[in-house]
Amino acid sequence: MFGPKTLALDAMGGDHGPEVTVPGAALALAQHPELHFILAGSEPEIARVLAGYPDLAARSQIVHTDLAIGMEDKPSQALRRGKGSSMWLALDAVKTGRAHAAISAGNTGALMAMSRLILRPMPGIERPALAAQWPTINRPSIVLDVGSNIGASAQQLIIFALMGAAMARAHFDVERPTVGLLNVGSEEIKGNEEVKEAHARLKQGDLDLPFEYRGFVEGDQIGQGVVDVVVVEGFAGNIALKTAEGTARQIATYLKAAMMQSWQTKLGAWLARDGFRVLKDKIDPRRVNGGPFLGLNGIAIKSHGGTDAFGFASAINLGYEMAANDFNARLAADIGAIAPKLEAVRVDPAVEPVGSDIQAAGSQQSAGIQQSGERKTR
Amino acid sequence: MFGPKTLALDAMGGDHGPEVTVPGAALALAQHPELHFILAGSEPEIARVLAGYPDLAARSQIVHTDLAIGMEDKPSQALRRGKGSSMWLALDAVKTGRAHAAISAGNTGALMAMSRLILRPMPGIERPALAAQWPTINRPSIVLDVGSNIGASAQQLIIFALMGAAMARAHFDVERPTVGLLNVGSEEIKGNEEVKEAHARLKQGDLDLPFEYRGFVEGDQIGQGVVDVVVVEGFAGNIALKTAEGTARQIATYLKAAMMQSWQTKLGAWLARDGFRVLKDKIDPRRVNGGPFLGLNGIAIKSHGGTDAFGFASAINLGYEMAANDFNARLAADIGAIAPKLEAVRVDPAVEPVGSDIQAAGSQQSAGIQQSGERKTR
Repeated sequence: MFGPKTLALDAMGGDHGPEVTVPGAALALAQHPELHFILAGSEPEIARVLAGYPDLAARSQIVHTDLAIGMEDKPSQALRRGKGSSMWLALDAVKTGRAHAAISAGNTGALMAMSRLILRPMPGIERPALAAQWPTINRPSIVLDVGSNIGASAQQLIIFALMGAAMARAHFDVERPTVGLLNVGSEEIKGNEEVKEAHARLKQGDLDLPFEYRGFVEGDQIGQGVVDVVVVEGFAGNIALKTAEGTARQIATYLKAAMMQSWQTKLGAWLARDGFRVLKDKIDPRRVNGGPFLGLNGIAIKSHGGTDAFGFASAINLGYEMAANDFNARLAADIGAIAPKLEAVRVDPAVEPVGSDIQAAGSQQSAGIQQSGERKTR
Repeated sequence: MFGPKTLALDAMGGDHGPEVTVPGAALALAQHPELHFILAGSEPEIARVLAGYPDLAARSQIVHTDLAIGMEDKPSQALRRGKGSSMWLALDAVKTGRAHAAISAGNTGALMAMSRLILRPMPGIERPALAAQWPTINRPSIVLDVGSNIGASAQQLIIFALMGAAMARAHFDVERPTVGLLNVGSEEIKGNEEVKEAHARLKQGDLDLPFEYRGFVEGDQIGQGVVDVVVVEGFAGNIALKTAEGTARQIATYLKAAMMQSWQTKLGAWLARDGFRVLKDKIDPRRVNGGPFLGLNGIAIKSHGGTDAFGFASAINLGYEMAANDFNARLAADIGAIAPKLEAVRVDPAVEPVGSDIQAAGSQQSAGIQQSGERKTR
């Protein structure tokens, strides 16, 4: 493991700008003292906050610009008017080899468009994907794509699997991550054509995959941590991610109200406060903050816009780990080894049941409400 | 409101068969004393349980069959071998006008295939959809499709909206339900083509819709109850539903562990037990059990297979309400009024921005991680 020395931060990105990004960098530096930083943004604003962190100041270089991308700017505006902005300069530092990764809490759409334009997709990758860390009852899983693309072909899903596995290797230090395809059911007849085709291809065993393919997973299994990497096209992936976030918030709302309903519940909640603190830690989105935009010639990490210094430090640490584990070189090697086979070999029709008699009988592939049990036809 | 007198139950469906379906019917009868039941299944097994419920027995007719669909049977097997099964007989009672709705806790795929075959889609409906009740911080919302179809055209999404709105009217007694389209972002440039086209069409205002269209909603807004009906194609809808279920279970696991960690948290949790009971009620899936298969010539309700009598009674009550509110006749009228306009009128291109310069700039429509804030380009 080589030490990545320098990370480039979009110091103005996010809801709070340098008030969060600079203290976040200080936290990350405390964990990785060998780090250097390039801080892109308004020099006076950054310097004012940086004055409170002399250790960080000693290892940081400010690259001044008055331009910053707005959180509400459309990606097209960002590309038209954003050249030389703090986001641009951070990405440019990666492109020109002055930094090993760029981290921004800015506008997601703008960051994806700009990082794609500046860093360009890696050879063999048509569609870079946004990955998210998903808290589970085990270690977090990686879910991708969570909204960079709408739809994905079978080939693209397999490339997503390679990218997610490479990230799991870098981030969790597992040599052979487990991978699942998100689907609406575990039976092979279910799901859309792309997912079924990717499944058949991954099961064939001729691809010499750098991960262990575990088959289909369903929405309720993500949080169980059944696999290290969950692969899905971006529309359903984004909806799944936000639905999970919304459900967690919803239950937190219920829980607060439930504990406030009488003096006795209030007293109980006060006594149990250490437990609630543990719960809060468990579902703390700051711990898993940081979603890399995978498949580019360089590492670009998206942080939540509303996070605090602790959360931003998580995103910085992710960038550090990916750089330190030589993420991009290893992914390029994986893609180089697998992509030609994806082109060359057709799916064995015996693996994929095409035109099963369900459709002939007039039904659609169905999943609906999950159920269990062993009741058999008598 | 006319009184539907008779509901047909697949008494053998689900993990527990008559042990759950018969007591469930007894609970529903207590709430709606005018009900009658047709109980389809094994006469001796049903009669044994029914003996404990004399009021129910007096208002029930057992239709005997030795055949039951297994929970693991494939839909194709169910159609081939399931004629005359308890599920079949319950649906047949609706088809022949002897019952106003059929309720089954059996195999989802089999129920969808069989109800489609027996009841047939309504005129103007190409793809029936499975709807779910989704608990929110307000009253539950209706989400459809949750897995009956993979993918949906713009027209089909609009038909789903009509079906969901009709169900909301029957189930929540709102004359003009609010409807949203599930999407990956609230900007009009985001989302897949079908969703964007449906959005443009719904916004045009010429359809004379029997609901209020509220635009796009994102995954984290479903649980906030921002609209009565959330429309989505079945792949993403099923994944969203299961992801929410999984997240709720995941947090419940954390919460239990957190409250067991010391004598003090245990004591606190015991004192706060009334609060935890309220929480448990709030997230109790039994309260919202029952997903209708919408768009058929007759009402068919899917219950969770693993539910208990309380949960099964919820599904029965849903069938009762839909029948009592003349769901199918009103939906047929809505479809009859809207469907011809969907065919006739093309979408005004001015409403839908086609080929925005984002794509020209090489980016995909992007959503990714949600963010807020007002930071503007400077």
